[in-house]
Amino acid sequence: MPVLAVAGAFLHSNTSFAQQLEKRLPDWSVVNSTDPAASRAEVAVCWNQPPGTWEHLRAVRMAHSIGAGVDHLLDDPTLPDVPVCRVIDDNLARRMAEYVLWCTLYYHRGFDIAARNQREKIWRRPANRLAGEVTVGVMGMGQIGAHLATTLRDAGYDVRGWSRSGKPIDGVRVHGGDAGFGAFLSELEILVCMLPLTNETTGILGRKLFARLKPGARLIQCGRGPQLDEKDLVAALDSGQLGGAVVDVFNQEPLPAAHELWAHPKVLVTPHMAAVMPIPDVVNQIAENCERLLSNAPLLRVVERSAGY
Amino acid sequence: MPVLAVAGAFLHSNTSFAQQLEKRLPDWSVVNSTDPAASRAEVAVCWNQPPGTWEHLRAVRMAHSIGAGVDHLLDDPTLPDVPVCRVIDDNLARRMAEYVLWCTLYYHRGFDIAARNQREKIWRRPANRLAGEVTVGVMGMGQIGAHLATTLRDAGYDVRGWSRSGKPIDGVRVHGGDAGFGAFLSELEILVCMLPLTNETTGILGRKLFARLKPGARLIQCGRGPQLDEKDLVAALDSGQLGGAVVDVFNQEPLPAAHELWAHPKVLVTPHMAAVMPIPDVVNQIAENCERLLSNAPLLRVVERSAGY
Repeated sequence: MPVLAVAGAFLHSNTSFAQQLEKRLPDWSVVNSTDPAASRAEVAVCWNQPPGTWEHLRAVRMAHSIGAGVDHLLDDPTLPDVPVCRVIDDNLARRMAEYVLWCTLYYHRGFDIAARNQREKIWRRPANRLAGEVTVGVMGMGQIGAHLATTLRDAGYDVRGWSRSGKPIDGVRVHGGDAGFGAFLSELEILVCMLPLTNETTGILGRKLFARLKPGARLIQCGRGPQLDEKDLVAALDSGQLGGAVVDVFNQEPLPAAHELWAHPKVLVTPHMAAVMPIPDVVNQIAENCERLLSNAPLLRVVERSAGY
Repeated sequence: MPVLAVAGAFLHSNTSFAQQLEKRLPDWSVVNSTDPAASRAEVAVCWNQPPGTWEHLRAVRMAHSIGAGVDHLLDDPTLPDVPVCRVIDDNLARRMAEYVLWCTLYYHRGFDIAARNQREKIWRRPANRLAGEVTVGVMGMGQIGAHLATTLRDAGYDVRGWSRSGKPIDGVRVHGGDAGFGAFLSELEILVCMLPLTNETTGILGRKLFARLKPGARLIQCGRGPQLDEKDLVAALDSGQLGGAVVDVFNQEPLPAAHELWAHPKVLVTPHMAAVMPIPDVVNQIAENCERLLSNAPLLRVVERSAGY
């Protein structure tokens, strides 16, 4: 019986994930990477696998990421020279747009205020404006950011974009580069971060940026954790420079229970859920490659290791 | 100086509303209907005006509702024989669709679970399915319901409708009449009530209807207050027959502080805000008619009293 080892902490529970893999691969034995039987594993399914994983998993013939990202695998110098595969979600842009549209409506229609008032049993209608009166800015206009911008535009919002190039999108004013950054930020009621993580975007969501927004602006952060200076966020919320934030990604995930963002009254914490593949789809893509491995068929979604994706 | 009297409890604060009217009508004196000066008022702006209002406001030449509804005026036998005007919101259907789309995403994307988990500092990703896997049913397919159904359809949901006639809408399966009611209800994950208030719809959202839904279904109530049996709702939530509810309209509004729905963990209470005109638009439409009254120009949006609208 071939063995599959799951390594790392991921999804909502390793147990449930392993059970679903077992159900989908009844001819395989699914074990935790720390289990003695994992030394015979032909497949490792990984997300932030613990140090020492590869010393133990010496029989592995394929390393499979459970996400689109593979940096956690490629950054590990002890990774053996085996094919690295990933999962790909064709619906990523749509999922992201759903998440951000919800957050935008949350602020635009005053659901944040209604929820706060419910706790105090206060009946008071929030201000009600048309979507066209609300200016929303999207930082990062790649494929996902551009899809988001057009979704918000179609929902009636006054949408602005910001990207390196400033390449325009129909119905969306896109500011370009450093020159356009100040003008972009100064007009926004809601700022959405969709940037990729680079040296330039690390820490970009901090005191300096917040100071360039209109007082009371709202932040929707579904880029990458290290882009946000969490201390600066709390300070900006407490001073009123920011009116609220929905944060989906954090410097440390899971967000530690002691972290001040959990209990901040102006912050909605979501558990990195903006654009997650459904587990059954992840399970299917991994199972498909396991079957291919056993039958010596070409693997799917193999990463070009030198390119890093 | 002509006098305008505001009568009743409405909007988020009478004071702010009166201030905005004063600003828009600098040549008028805006007073509360209980003020002695209200006896000289030429205009009464009303929402659930208190008993005795018309005995005091003897100089009134126009009664203006602050909403589309005028039943609170026409049902009052002491209302003098003056023109009754209302405000009309061309964006009503769009506002309603925004509200319901937010509620639908709230349940579909698990924001309800994320909010609950935040209070407990629990990091756990909710299930994540595509919109097409979520079946949403809209009861009431008039102009507003039909607009909602197409909005949800365009957002990717599997949308069903129910109306008296069963008249189909492109991409939405519409069940008709009593015969189609059971089939309509039995397939839904989310039920949206957009029905008008009639004898037949009073109390329709009760035990019998809830029992015909799939266990754990969610309710979005933005029809009219008396359609919902609030005791039955609590029982259905507590038994698990319903998994959650967003309720925007109530039998008594404002919802009394002692009402059990305020504190129910599975209920989101919103203050009749799904489709409210922005105050500046209400103020403008009223001010326009005040100016017309003084210059003897024809009033706008005058109600046909015999028809009741």
